Amino acid sequence: MASAIGVDIGGTKVLAVRLNAAGEVEAWSKRRTPVSASDVIDAVLFSVAQVAEGADQAPETLPLGVGFPGMLDRNGTAHFCPHLHSVDGMDLRRLLAERRDPNAATVVLNDATAACWAEHSVGAARGFEDVLMVTLGTGIGGGMVAHGRLLEGGHGFAGEIGHMVIDPHGPPCPCGKRGCWERFASGDGLGRLAREAAMAGTLDCAVAAAGGDPEAVRGEHVTEAALKGQPEALAVMKEYAWWLALGLANLSNVLDPSIIVLGGGLIEAEQAVMEPLRHDFANLVEAPEARALPVLAAELGEKAGAVGAALLAAQRTG
Amino acid sequence: MASAIGVDIGGTKVLAVRLNAAGEVEAWSKRRTPVSASDVIDAVLFSVAQVAEGADQAPETLPLGVGFPGMLDRNGTAHFCPHLHSVDGMDLRRLLAERRDPNAATVVLNDATAACWAEHSVGAARGFEDVLMVTLGTGIGGGMVAHGRLLEGGHGFAGEIGHMVIDPHGPPCPCGKRGCWERFASGDGLGRLAREAAMAGTLDCAVAAAGGDPEAVRGEHVTEAALKGQPEALAVMKEYAWWLALGLANLSNVLDPSIIVLGGGLIEAEQAVMEPLRHDFANLVEAPEARALPVLAAELGEKAGAVGAALLAAQRTG
Repeated sequence: MASAIGVDIGGTKVLAVRLNAAGEVEAWSKRRTPVSASDVIDAVLFSVAQVAEGADQAPETLPLGVGFPGMLDRNGTAHFCPHLHSVDGMDLRRLLAERRDPNAATVVLNDATAACWAEHSVGAARGFEDVLMVTLGTGIGGGMVAHGRLLEGGHGFAGEIGHMVIDPHGPPCPCGKRGCWERFASGDGLGRLAREAAMAGTLDCAVAAAGGDPEAVRGEHVTEAALKGQPEALAVMKEYAWWLALGLANLSNVLDPSIIVLGGGLIEAEQAVMEPLRHDFANLVEAPEARALPVLAAELGEKAGAVGAALLAAQRTG
Repeated sequence: MASAIGVDIGGTKVLAVRLNAAGEVEAWSKRRTPVSASDVIDAVLFSVAQVAEGADQAPETLPLGVGFPGMLDRNGTAHFCPHLHSVDGMDLRRLLAERRDPNAATVVLNDATAACWAEHSVGAARGFEDVLMVTLGTGIGGGMVAHGRLLEGGHGFAGEIGHMVIDPHGPPCPCGKRGCWERFASGDGLGRLAREAAMAGTLDCAVAAAGGDPEAVRGEHVTEAALKGQPEALAVMKEYAWWLALGLANLSNVLDPSIIVLGGGLIEAEQAVMEPLRHDFANLVEAPEARALPVLAAELGEKAGAVGAALLAAQRTG
């Protein structure tokens, strides 16, 4: 493959990588995500120039892939980026391409889709043709590979798995619905489950860590308490694992992946969730005895989105 | 394409078609589904012989595709056929193939997947590359085309959309879980919603049609009353449409089809459900303004599964 650059725009950070012709990370950088949209484009190009230092090609001629946290259509226009509102409605592909060499590939796509391609190509799902990747952060992102190919959807919007409603009587979601999966099974969802337990008077250990205010309890407080073996915190993690398993089982019944890869800080930090998760998942998916379906933690960590975007840009280059 | 035969095994009927080289139905037959598994294989071969009459090839040499109501793995073994228990665990492809010409294609697959391929190839979804087909009957079946190719899944199990849990506090499902989508949005689900209304003392019109017993109310009674404009029956249909829309929105958020095709007797008989459905669906899917996403009734009716299975068998033949 060609050498290529990938950039992952998160709600808080911009992470860039340069891959060499063997697909290995040669250089990388990380900076804060700017608030305004025009600054986002500048930040991408600044990061590109940074990681291109030392490459044998000018930055604007290298294939570039950029992952954004939201729904991007097949033309590269952003439609629903709840964690980066400023880019909504912008033709991101064009805005980037017109500041680069017209012969260089410029690819934009959803960040979790990019991360899925990376885990499929060089990460935990190497060798699997049917992959479901789930990233657990503020919300839930999803990417899917079917028959060895990225599943993009008719408009480019495939993978909005966090807004699958799993309890219409559940808590309201900023999207306007009630009981979206990410209200229960994202990092924020864990925080919400923990606060419910804290308000009910259990989870004293996490409340103390949060400065004594039950409403200030976040996901980190309960995972820390669970890692120390605190029984009430373990009970919250178990409840969280059940909700996570429920959504994974729903998606497996629909898509039938051969492997599920879980990404996001929560999973990397908290292997304790994996055991109850695998148990509940086997109870919730149809015909578990007939499926070989490992549920694994992602391997590429925070660089997955940038690596996947770079790999896709390199492929488009041929 | 080659001339081919398709057979669709339902819980109650076996429907067979013979397609000519242009893909048109030249002959078809329908018979009752036998109860025992060995009789099912005999019934398939009997139907094949029946529709092959008048063809210029012997029945056992024609490409054959057979759709079954359940989960079939990629080797052709049945794993979970709740409406045709007798075949569970059987290697259906081998049992059929060993009674046919060894050079003839013998393909087995899920019935809704076969129906989806038919609607994509020659029905309501002609010309669309990303299709979601949903069949509403006793349960809910699903088939999906992505990038113009059938989505089979890693084990062959893709499309078990009826067992997507949408309300964990909902009614129990024979699969062992609670609140599966098909408890609300299948033909049986409509009957359940209608009985709930009947037991609550509304829906007198449907109760009368059911012989005066609220517990005997079925989906047909409420659709008939709704077609006559009876307000309480229309309210039940509206509730039903909301649950149907909820699951379709979930699946659209995950898969992002370009078209949704609804099949099954309920939809063919009851266009009245489509208007509230389209309204609710637009409220439940993410970024509806950015998607062209028609929701249409199937065109091929009860022959869809058999036609799709025949088309696939013909393709395998080249």
